[in-house]
Amino acid sequence: MEATPLEELAGRSVTASQRLATALTADKDAFLRQAADLLEAAHGEILEANVKDLEAATARGASPATVDRLRLDSRRLSQMAEGLRAVAALPDPVGEVVEGHVRPNGLRVERVRVPLGVVGLIYENRPNVTSDAAGLCLKAGNAALLRGSGAALSSNRAIAAILRAGLDKVGLPEDGVLLVEDTSHETAEAFVRLQAIDCLIPRGGPQLITMVRERSTVPYVIDGDGNCHVYVDRSADLEMARRIVVNAKTSRPSVCNAMESLLVHGDVADQFLPEIASELAERGVELVGDPTACRLVPTIAPATEEDFATEFLALKCSVAVVASLDGAISHLRRYSSGHSEAIVTEDIGAASRFVREVDAAAVLVNASTRFVDGGELGLGAEVGISTQKLHARGPMGLKELTAVKYVVYGEGQTRA
Amino acid sequence: MEATPLEELAGRSVTASQRLATALTADKDAFLRQAADLLEAAHGEILEANVKDLEAATARGASPATVDRLRLDSRRLSQMAEGLRAVAALPDPVGEVVEGHVRPNGLRVERVRVPLGVVGLIYENRPNVTSDAAGLCLKAGNAALLRGSGAALSSNRAIAAILRAGLDKVGLPEDGVLLVEDTSHETAEAFVRLQAIDCLIPRGGPQLITMVRERSTVPYVIDGDGNCHVYVDRSADLEMARRIVVNAKTSRPSVCNAMESLLVHGDVADQFLPEIASELAERGVELVGDPTACRLVPTIAPATEEDFATEFLALKCSVAVVASLDGAISHLRRYSSGHSEAIVTEDIGAASRFVREVDAAAVLVNASTRFVDGGELGLGAEVGISTQKLHARGPMGLKELTAVKYVVYGEGQTRA
Repeated sequence: MEATPLEELAGRSVTASQRLATALTADKDAFLRQAADLLEAAHGEILEANVKDLEAATARGASPATVDRLRLDSRRLSQMAEGLRAVAALPDPVGEVVEGHVRPNGLRVERVRVPLGVVGLIYENRPNVTSDAAGLCLKAGNAALLRGSGAALSSNRAIAAILRAGLDKVGLPEDGVLLVEDTSHETAEAFVRLQAIDCLIPRGGPQLITMVRERSTVPYVIDGDGNCHVYVDRSADLEMARRIVVNAKTSRPSVCNAMESLLVHGDVADQFLPEIASELAERGVELVGDPTACRLVPTIAPATEEDFATEFLALKCSVAVVASLDGAISHLRRYSSGHSEAIVTEDIGAASRFVREVDAAAVLVNASTRFVDGGELGLGAEVGISTQKLHARGPMGLKELTAVKYVVYGEGQTRA
Repeated sequence: MEATPLEELAGRSVTASQRLATALTADKDAFLRQAADLLEAAHGEILEANVKDLEAATARGASPATVDRLRLDSRRLSQMAEGLRAVAALPDPVGEVVEGHVRPNGLRVERVRVPLGVVGLIYENRPNVTSDAAGLCLKAGNAALLRGSGAALSSNRAIAAILRAGLDKVGLPEDGVLLVEDTSHETAEAFVRLQAIDCLIPRGGPQLITMVRERSTVPYVIDGDGNCHVYVDRSADLEMARRIVVNAKTSRPSVCNAMESLLVHGDVADQFLPEIASELAERGVELVGDPTACRLVPTIAPATEEDFATEFLALKCSVAVVASLDGAISHLRRYSSGHSEAIVTEDIGAASRFVREVDAAAVLVNASTRFVDGGELGLGAEVGISTQKLHARGPMGLKELTAVKYVVYGEGQTRA
């Protein structure tokens, strides 16, 4: 069977990945710094390419939010360049001996971190992902095969060209970064079935995630919804709870680690809810709640079942009053998307049960859900936040872009 | 939408998994020992159930190999019981703090090993998998949702009933082991799409693996083919090479870590190949080779392209003569299934390049490929050998049946 143009492109990624797998850290870091310099130098060119995408989006009647996600400006370009330099400064995960021991027969067994190979990224709008994700993939010794959206094609093409020039300049294979320029839906479906891809990372909305689940035949890591909760226990320090809830909901409502739902223990609801409701209202947050919450605070509108399952990504929040810690845990079992869940409590037993029984990528005690990202948890940078349990759970940094292989050293041992 | 009977069954697994996730190690170990005793005590009952499967298979005209895979006898039953006791003796992976550190703002960040939840197993024939796999799943705090083949239904039902009785006896939820008794193909397809499954492990032939890749919508770990190679370098100790090749090929040809293909450096081929060919022939191994191998040893028949890509699982082996280490690596890039690849060499540089450049779950230097299994590499027991790169690579033991979650402890921290 003849290879399709897409399969041919993927084949070039595989070839590049074989060279990148054994590249020296010094060369990979030189690439990242080189690419950062080139991005800054090509400032005008990139913004010009971006204007084409913006004009096309506006002509299509795209929403202001969509146009904003597409937009690059000097600040965003500097952030992209600084992002690449920050990745250069991180330790190289490749070659780390994760564990090792000697078997009774003298075999020396090591588990060693190695690159994944070809990382396939399929993503929407934001053209900065092209640079941010490719930088992380390359640092971990992988080839990045990128399939951005048609709306950002002109910007993505300009950025990919610069990254490729950076690779070439330091003597690494420029096919380490490859952009799929055919942005049809058919190509997206073929992309998620490319056997050359060792790890597929979809970054986008529910439709994309569903397409990947339904159609993909290669291993993937899902960066899913964050329907994050803060549970205020009956023993909570209510002033601490106030600060955490306000921070989790309002510091950046559009991101996946923002609080979407507030659970309050019945014993403290009549004291805590009116206060927090008025403080959130002052900050423009619309509250919807269960019957008890509505009764305690008349400005809270009745919530639908759907509201409790929704990641609003906006200044809106659902509220439920629960009778006990068990009630909070049951609520989470029903509605949590497995991203980040927090408890505010002074009770060591309640904290311990919450930590053990709540099934999420991150569980927090007396801290804001907003801390769940790669930078805040010490990973340096992230390519996404996994809400699945296999391979990576929570922020995916450089280590999550590697695999671990067994290396066994013998002196002629054979098996009995 | 109403839940199907299969979805209802899976819902019971989820409920059981929530209790098992926090079960004490002592209780899980008590279950494993209890189940081992019950298996031995129910000896007669299980063999009676097995006879039904054997008779049905014979009546259907199943091959002797198939009937043998279905067969249980006193020895196999004792092995199953001993397997459960061995798992009880292994350390519990749940609760292990994989890493931890304190952030500049005082947040204490830990990554803690937790159960996956519901592990779905879909497997063919061998009824011992029911006990072996369920034991490992339970020890790691998971519920095991089992879908064995129709051919083994009577045996699987008897074994599952005993495991459930064991759970009940120690006060753990008996739904920790659930067998899907509908063995239709439609149910298999629905099984691999059950959203309740946190990790799907298919154990079976290429058709099953393809079905999972094409149809599954849940995370899975593929236990794929082992087209394993031994490469005899020009600097090899040829006596060591002889022992390793004979062991890798003939000690148990039907398993996935057996050698299927032999690569020999051109500089030593005329000395090594005739010797090894006659030794392998004496042990009943049929050899097929590339033109150079056939020229050097007239008893080697010409190999097809397909032969080099085939996992024979039998006393058959393909042979190729390569001009260099690079030639060996290129051959592996083309034909390796990414399972286990060995080099025999005295050259430290060749060993180092082979280890770095060969992309497989396990790479071995001067040791037989037959060592690549959970027992031999020190994992204690395995639920399969993963040939994919995400989550688990190589033998999957108890740790690979867990996930790692972030636990963050604060004292009221909020994000700036």
